[in-house]
Formats: sequence, C-alpha cells, structure tokens
Amino acid sequence: MTVIDGARERARTPGCASGHHLNSAGAALPTADTLDTVIEYLRLEAFTGGYETARGALERIERTYESIATLVGCATDEVALMDSATRAWQTAIASLRLKAGDRVVVTRSEYVSNALMLLTLEREVGIVIDVVGTTAEGTVDLAELESRLEGAALVAIGHIPTFSGLVEPVAAIGELTRRHGVPFVLDATQSLGQLPIHAGLIGCDILVSTGRKYLRAPRGTGVLVVRRPLLDRLEPWVPDVRGAEWNGERTWELRDSARRFETFEHSPALRLGLGAAVDHALELGIDAIAERIGDLGADLRSRLCETPGVEIADPPAAAGGTVTFTIEGHSAETVVAHLAKHDVRLVSVPASHGQWELGRREIDAVVRASVHVYNDERDFAALTGALEKLPVRAQA
Amino acid sequence: MTVIDGARERARTPGCASGHHLNSAGAALPTADTLDTVIEYLRLEAFTGGYETARGALERIERTYESIATLVGCATDEVALMDSATRAWQTAIASLRLKAGDRVVVTRSEYVSNALMLLTLEREVGIVIDVVGTTAEGTVDLAELESRLEGAALVAIGHIPTFSGLVEPVAAIGELTRRHGVPFVLDATQSLGQLPIHAGLIGCDILVSTGRKYLRAPRGTGVLVVRRPLLDRLEPWVPDVRGAEWNGERTWELRDSARRFETFEHSPALRLGLGAAVDHALELGIDAIAERIGDLGADLRSRLCETPGVEIADPPAAAGGTVTFTIEGHSAETVVAHLAKHDVRLVSVPASHGQWELGRREIDAVVRASVHVYNDERDFAALTGALEKLPVRAQA
Repeated sequence: MTVIDGARERARTPGCASGHHLNSAGAALPTADTLDTVIEYLRLEAFTGGYETARGALERIERTYESIATLVGCATDEVALMDSATRAWQTAIASLRLKAGDRVVVTRSEYVSNALMLLTLEREVGIVIDVVGTTAEGTVDLAELESRLEGAALVAIGHIPTFSGLVEPVAAIGELTRRHGVPFVLDATQSLGQLPIHAGLIGCDILVSTGRKYLRAPRGTGVLVVRRPLLDRLEPWVPDVRGAEWNGERTWELRDSARRFETFEHSPALRLGLGAAVDHALELGIDAIAERIGDLGADLRSRLCETPGVEIADPPAAAGGTVTFTIEGHSAETVVAHLAKHDVRLVSVPASHGQWELGRREIDAVVRASVHVYNDERDFAALTGALEKLPVRAQA
Repeated sequence: MTVIDGARERARTPGCASGHHLNSAGAALPTADTLDTVIEYLRLEAFTGGYETARGALERIERTYESIATLVGCATDEVALMDSATRAWQTAIASLRLKAGDRVVVTRSEYVSNALMLLTLEREVGIVIDVVGTTAEGTVDLAELESRLEGAALVAIGHIPTFSGLVEPVAAIGELTRRHGVPFVLDATQSLGQLPIHAGLIGCDILVSTGRKYLRAPRGTGVLVVRRPLLDRLEPWVPDVRGAEWNGERTWELRDSARRFETFEHSPALRLGLGAAVDHALELGIDAIAERIGDLGADLRSRLCETPGVEIADPPAAAGGTVTFTIEGHSAETVVAHLAKHDVRLVSVPASHGQWELGRREIDAVVRASVHVYNDERDFAALTGALEKLPVRAQA
C-alpha cells in the first residue's frame, strides 16, 4: 500500500487554498482534474450540442460505470448512475414493492430522507418498521439484529450516519442477512470513498451512495448498485425511456442491467466528473485513503477531546473521518457561524436529520467536522484555535 | 414586441460556430452567458466548498424560481426545481395517489416515459387509461375530450409531442378541465421557451418541463409547477429532507410551497444555469421568441416540402419550431447519419418514443428537425442541400 502525500493532494485540490475545509461529510473539495473534466465537457456540449456530445462521449461515460464497479467490487452492469443517494435509495426501495405487513429492519441512526420514505410506507402501505437497538459501543446489536431476521422483508443499514462518526460492522451484518436470506440495503453515503467497500465481501444486495461527499465528485451525482440475482427480480417502480423499451401498445421490456433504474435525462458532465473523482480514488488506492483519513480523524478526535468546553457526541465505536461534538453554552449553529469567521468550514446537523437517535437522546444539534486526504494539522489548529476563542458561557 | 436580431443571437451562442444545429427539440444550444454562469459557479464551489457556496448563492438561486414564475405566469412558491421533466411528471403523478378505477384521460401523442408510468399504474394499481381521439387536423378532439371528463381523475396532455410539430389547443383544454373540475397536467417539455405559456390562462393545475430543450438550459434540469389550491392538497409520494421536516419519531411537516416536491441533493450550478437561460428568454420576450421560432419553423417546413423525396410526417395542426419527416427509401437513422457528415445535427425519433401514435400509424421512426432563435436560412440550406445529396432509392 502506498502512503498518501498530503502536500501533493492539497496541491491537486484548488479549495485548499481558500481556508480550512472540514466538511467532507457534507460536500468534499474536488480535485482540479475533476473540476476540469466537468467544465471541459460543458464547453464541448455548448459548442456541439447536448445529444451530439453525449454520443461522442459514450465510451468515456461507460468507463465511469467500470470505475465504480472496480471501487465497489461488483459487475459493471450492476451499476446505475443517479442524481443523488436519496434518489438511489428511494428507487431501490420502491422497486422492492413492499406490502402490508412487510417488516423492515433498520437502526436508530437511519438518515432522515430514508426514514421519511419508510414512515410513508408505514402509513400508506402498512409496512412495519423494526428499529434494532445498539450495543454500549453504539453499533447495532448483532445478536438482536439476528433475532429479528426471521421473516423480515428487508434490512436497511447506514454504514456511517450523517450525525456521527459511528461505523457499523457491515461485514458482520452482511454475513447475518446472507445466512438468513434477507435482502440487505447498505447506505454507503458517508463511507464510499473513505472506507474500502467490497459489496461481495460485505454481502449487501443493494448499495447506494452520493457523489459529493467522500468520493469528491460533483454535486448532483449518486450511485445505485443492485447485485444479481436480486437485480433480475427487481423492476423499477416507474421505468422511463432509458430503463425500458416501449415495444407495443401496452408492453415494454426492461434493460438487462441496473440501468433499468436510470432516467434518460441527466447531466453527462456531472457523470464524467463522478468518473474522474472515482478514478482519483482508485489511483490513490482506497486502502491508502482509508488509512490517511483514519489517521487524520483520530488526530482530530483527540485534539477536540483536549479542547476546553468541547464534548464529543460520537459513540465509542466512532472511527473514520467524521467527528461530532457540542460546546457547552453554545448552540451548534452559533459555533458553526463563529468558525466560519475564522475560515473554518463545517456544519451543524440538527436532530431533524436523525430523530431516532439524536431526537431520542434529546440533542438539538451537533457540530460535525470531517476530514479528507487533503486536510492536515493546520486545519485542525485553525479549528481548535477558533474554538478556544469562543466566549465561555454557562450552559443555556 | 421587439423583433429578435438573429445575428446577435448567433453571436451570443458559441455552438453556432460549429455546424448546423437543428436539434433544439432534443437539446438546444445554450448562450455563452448560461455556460459561463454554470462554469463560474462550479469553480467557486471547488474553491470554497459545495455547501458554503450554495449558502452564499441563496438569493441568486431564489431568483431562478422568480424567473420561472414570471415565464410561466404563476406564483414563485408554486415552482419546484427538478433534474428532468420526466422526474417532474413522475413526482406530480405519484403525489396524486391514483387508485383502482381512477380514469386518466390522455392523448395518443403521450410521451414514452409518461406512458410507461401510466401503464405501470394500470397494471399495478388498476387505473384506467383513456386515450382520446384526434381531429383531422391532428389535435385532440375537444368534443370527445369533454365527453370523457365526467368522473375522470386526471387529464394529462403534452403541449407538443416529441415526435411531431403538433401543437395542442391547451387553452381550450384547460377551459374544459376547469369547467368540469378535473385536474389538468400539462407536459410543456417541448413548448416552454418557444411558446407563450401562462399557466393561469391555460388553466392547467400542474406543468412540467425540461430545461435542455427550448429553454436552452443545461442538461439535468427540469421544472415542476403545481398551482394552488391543488398544491395544498398534494403530498409528495416520498418527501425527503428538503421537502419536509422530520419533527418527531413518526411525524413530519411538509414545506408550504412546491419545494415539498424537491430533493435536497442537486447541482446548484445547473439550477443557476437554468435561471440564466430563463432570464435570457425573458430578456428577448417570449412573444418575440415565439414569433421568430414560428417564422423559422414555417420556412423550414416549406423548404422541406419542396425537397424531392421528403415526406412531412407532421399532422396539419403542426406549428412552432419542430418539423418531422421521412425520406422515401431511407431509414430515419441513415438520414441522420448522412446529415451529420454534412455538419447538420438533428435526430430521429423511433416509434418506441410514442407507440400510441407512431406505432399505431406503423411508422418506424421520423427525422426531427427543430429550430431556435439562433438558426437561420444557412442552416436550412445546409439541411436541404445535404438531403438532395442522398442517393435516390426505391422504397425498401
């Protein structure tokens, strides 16, 4: 495994020149290569036409699917390109045609948009949402999970939530779901691009991710992976002209690949940007990226622990590039605004993004700092330095 | 009304330098301004971060909604931004919660992706698809349409189809649907940006469009307009964090605007490009655009009529910027490939994009030429000149 040269990665990332970006879990900074790929395509499109340029770029677009398949460890025809992770998740869940009484096993850290879909299906279709408890470490309780698998219609798990650095033991989960024959949907939105994910080893049947976070791809991109043999059984809830051929008055034929879930209209420029971003990750090597992000995350975590007034909000099983915290006497939003004035860019995550966990713990919001290969100790010094300038206040 | 200066519009359109673009009904050429808007935003995003740049651009993004509201003649909070017209249509139809026995009145020229959704709902939910006939002119038979409105759940009409220049009498349709209290969904994908559309005057309750066609916006953009009071009654089938606030373990509250139908993740760059494109249309004036496109379309139609071997495929009620035709003895695809060699860019549209009309008429495919304000007689001369070079062949 090669070691990542942080200085080189900073030089390849234009945004490193403009402050301290600690928001990879929101939207990471792209490389200059990824940006140029998108812009170059848009210029070509304006010059020769949207359809004409897409036709000429077919092979390059095809390589985006191949790169994602390599990164995820699946077949190229199991990959569909989406405009967001939520769209990918909704598309996958809708294709399962869940019906009254179908039980869906989830964790407390389910992401808001996924939860809203499940709650809608609970209300309108009559599915049963089965929320599994956690261990003292914060990860899903595997014994409890296994006890719920008999007769379950689906297991839907987020690899890393939006509001903490918790990393779920997805390989162990996949082993259980496989053994019990329950389809497993993995939401890798916060992990793809920072942790090695091999869909085959993890045993998930469906994987979704956004492009903009740890993959460092443009906004408005997402990935849906549906593995065979499940793929062969799933029809998109609503196919469009991209996913199916309308071949008679009332008949249509689905594509024999995950592209049956795609829509015809999309931005090829953004998809090529996604491809460039994935290629960059493959070039560095996902193991090397994981090591660097893990080291930086650990460093950030320990520095924050040592900063007066900071309370880490993550559970013990936190790892990777995301660290969440609160500051005594200051709302998360105030902290974020204060840090922005010191050129430190990160976000707060409100309870409404994770009611089953943050809401349950009666936490209004947390501050979320997240790192990528291009961060270094200067970013952390800026963060802790600015935090120390916050006026000390009694808890409101 | 001002008259559009074609030479000026060509100068503002980089793609006019690279051949003869007669594919506005596929994806039109953007202005240099629109292209620059997108690129400038992407650069800023790479420099300061995806979330941070979006926060700074809130007012500009807001103006995109306002511009669309001005163009469509609706309130700003009735506008939602989408990634495609099909997504907008699917989102709207899904929010109607059609149930078994609900009758949906459509025309024969329904677009493939819309038809596939209706056929899916027919098969899985049990809705009834009611296809209304046409007059000799090719437009929907208004008397027949009116006779079907009693007890109908929905009227869904395309303003201009994907495979011909037919313009439906949408104001007359809207008058009928209003009188009978049936919701009217107008698919303005091929008309918004080329014809004046005032949602209030037309009387439609829902309007969808893509960005990339006559609006000249970037690929990967779309518009959904839901008018009150219908908006107040419609819930998105699956809200996400953008459309609803998750405020308790099993409760959520929808946004009080059409943004309840949006998803959180999107490309702000593309949306700003859409705003720039709409602003350009507003600057020229939609009446002036309609006049120029109408004149150019009429000129193109008469030139094609005079070209040996060309058979116009459009019905008599064709108007606007789209002209479709076939050539005796040549497949539509062969014609398109031949024209491409002469720098004339257009597309063929297969029967699978409109089975209820093209399929019924046993037409395999048509060649579609479509104009915008930046086209001129040189483009038409190139087209007809190249067509005349096609070897004369007996009908296959």
